[in-house]
Amino acid sequence: MADALKIGVAGLGTVGASLVRIIRERQEKLEISCGRAIEVTAVSARDRTRDRGVDLSGMTWFDDPLDMARNADIDVFVELIGGAGEPARGAVTAALERGLHVVTANKALLARNGVALAALAEEKGVLLNFEAAVAGGIPVIKALRESLTGNTISRIYGIMNGTCNYILTRMEKEKLSFQDCLTEAQRLGYAEADPSFDIEGNDTAHKLAILTSLAFGCQISCDDIYMEGISNITQEDIVAAAELGYRIKLLGVAQRTEGGVEQRVHPTMVPHDTVIAQVDGVTNAVALESDILGDLLMVGPGAGGDATASAVLGDIADIAKSQPGVQTVPALGRPAKTLEPYKRARMRSHEGGYFIRMRVVDRIGVIAAIARRMADNQISLESIVQHSTNGDREAPTKTIIMVTHATTEQSVRDAVNAMESDGYIVKKPQVIRIEKP
Amino acid sequence: MADALKIGVAGLGTVGASLVRIIRERQEKLEISCGRAIEVTAVSARDRTRDRGVDLSGMTWFDDPLDMARNADIDVFVELIGGAGEPARGAVTAALERGLHVVTANKALLARNGVALAALAEEKGVLLNFEAAVAGGIPVIKALRESLTGNTISRIYGIMNGTCNYILTRMEKEKLSFQDCLTEAQRLGYAEADPSFDIEGNDTAHKLAILTSLAFGCQISCDDIYMEGISNITQEDIVAAAELGYRIKLLGVAQRTEGGVEQRVHPTMVPHDTVIAQVDGVTNAVALESDILGDLLMVGPGAGGDATASAVLGDIADIAKSQPGVQTVPALGRPAKTLEPYKRARMRSHEGGYFIRMRVVDRIGVIAAIARRMADNQISLESIVQHSTNGDREAPTKTIIMVTHATTEQSVRDAVNAMESDGYIVKKPQVIRIEKP
Repeated sequence: MADALKIGVAGLGTVGASLVRIIRERQEKLEISCGRAIEVTAVSARDRTRDRGVDLSGMTWFDDPLDMARNADIDVFVELIGGAGEPARGAVTAALERGLHVVTANKALLARNGVALAALAEEKGVLLNFEAAVAGGIPVIKALRESLTGNTISRIYGIMNGTCNYILTRMEKEKLSFQDCLTEAQRLGYAEADPSFDIEGNDTAHKLAILTSLAFGCQISCDDIYMEGISNITQEDIVAAAELGYRIKLLGVAQRTEGGVEQRVHPTMVPHDTVIAQVDGVTNAVALESDILGDLLMVGPGAGGDATASAVLGDIADIAKSQPGVQTVPALGRPAKTLEPYKRARMRSHEGGYFIRMRVVDRIGVIAAIARRMADNQISLESIVQHSTNGDREAPTKTIIMVTHATTEQSVRDAVNAMESDGYIVKKPQVIRIEKP
Repeated sequence: MADALKIGVAGLGTVGASLVRIIRERQEKLEISCGRAIEVTAVSARDRTRDRGVDLSGMTWFDDPLDMARNADIDVFVELIGGAGEPARGAVTAALERGLHVVTANKALLARNGVALAALAEEKGVLLNFEAAVAGGIPVIKALRESLTGNTISRIYGIMNGTCNYILTRMEKEKLSFQDCLTEAQRLGYAEADPSFDIEGNDTAHKLAILTSLAFGCQISCDDIYMEGISNITQEDIVAAAELGYRIKLLGVAQRTEGGVEQRVHPTMVPHDTVIAQVDGVTNAVALESDILGDLLMVGPGAGGDATASAVLGDIADIAKSQPGVQTVPALGRPAKTLEPYKRARMRSHEGGYFIRMRVVDRIGVIAAIARRMADNQISLESIVQHSTNGDREAPTKTIIMVTHATTEQSVRDAVNAMESDGYIVKKPQVIRIEKP
């Protein structure tokens, strides 16, 4: 039996405390599966006095994670601090430089510094594992990095933010407004006090950027992601989507196109009878489309202390089972130096179907004018529905809902701009992209 | 760069031919991901003259896979022959004894001999990988063996036979009989000329037996699986299920209970609004319920040459990335000698909801008699529906459909037996178990 694998855990929030507790409670089980014991020998957090409900006896305490990375008697540095900057970045870098394996759940750190950290890990011959950084307990990193070796991926998309999916699910099931659902999500602890990072799509974008690199063999580029959040989604959109056979999800999508790789995060209509459309509440889902394997969809918990700790533990177990000191699996699926530069496909070249909902003045000729603008931009309509006229006698308005066949973002933008300048549109039109499996 | 990993492929059917072609076509990509080249240096099949559409030049041909296992210049023996007996078993055993890593897609072989083969692989310090043996391209073996390390699994269930799911989906969507759908599945190549192995549940049982061992840390026992196929499912069942908010799927289910581990394969009603209920056609799905991670569901191709070859290739890539000659991941998730004996939970102790459909003579007092038999056996009803009376004036009959709250298999069997002996049942009642996520 090999020596125990010694772990240092930096960050004792929900995930860190859960991880320390689980490793302590399941010593025997872990030793049987991994062929060696796993032992937390060091921890680091800001507040030494806080009761985290776990027994930290026998572990060396470090106030500073950088100090732990440099000096603790450990084989693996587990980073659960969060954030792209300090102290996470410096501590992880120091740990890798020292030749420690690193496990992290930090999507922001990887989205910003993933390639450099992967290169450093490879140079030092250690593992950099980060299953928990994307979609929590769903083993999508392992699937991309290991199971799909040799495949060419054409598209990857998913529901990767539980807060948004919870809000959209509640809006649909309970017929509540976005704001009401957000307030409830905050009350239940599913949304932060400042929810903008989740609901505007940044969180999904960070995760998508990591998956894009793994899927397409390119460098990570999270500043090149087209991003729209869900705060503009209304009951009217949800109802119209249902009538047309769709549900609205916040998707992150990365797709290989002729012009490069598209990366986009936006509210999306998905056909009601698809598997991903049935993924409700805080649950996450990631779909991978590849040329040899075909389509793979994974559904599971995207967050939560235990689910995230389980993913971290899986990463630690992989290290325990590997030969000490020998890095074998490149962090981003191929050596960092072989990653191609990210070539961004322009959003206006995006091709797909669109849902367009507009409130227009109710007068003769408006529908004809709309139809002409669509035709001018080569947009073919799958359906057009006119909803009942608004009760205002002075200035009657009506709602027009259109679903287009596949067209381009540029065409839709041009058509909408032209209609806006025509003067019959009462308020900013709602445009939602459609994604089909 | 390490030396090329030399592969011998035994069995050149659809999967084998696909694998050889893919490895040849993607040399560069594989070398970048794995850090070393992967090369097929030997092949074995019965007919040397058949055109398989792949270039076998430069590969040593063996008429006998056992000869290849013993004598070929290879590092990995890939077994795609199939069947629990010879020549697959002898060849795999010889390869392991010689100290070769083995990759196999052979569920029957593992269901029958998996523990002995795993023990041999561990003794020799080599890897025995078999992702393709269960649910084709879905990486469920890797999830159980690696990602879920440390978790305690409570239940695992899935749609693991594409033929059955194709037939059930067609029956529902096209309102066709079981026989018509089976004939069509045979025409399309989704079902064998002798389909009994698929439709009676044996294929699912083999896969389930392997998953059970990985999930519950026990020895493989595929003779202890309760098994019912789909050939008795009728349009009436499908329609009644839809009316009650269910769809019918052939599930394999393994579940930890107080009395042991339940293993069962049977047509199952799953709630319509669950993700697994939306899995249609030949697609497979596997759900894992565990205490740390929570619920994980994976959906993907369960068969097909390329999808299966992709899973085999993922297994080969894992070997390429590992240190030569050092076995690190026990084949069944823990060393074979630590697997506990399989403790079978008795099927009659199974607890769950039941759907019961009966045709009974249409006379006063029958409903009361049925209700009394259910009450006698402590079965509480969620719903009871009486369908319109049959047109036959001489001997009118009617259909009764009941859905029970959670009860036991024994209670249901006793109640049905009692009702049959009461004499008002016209033909054998249909009993379908209900499974909820």
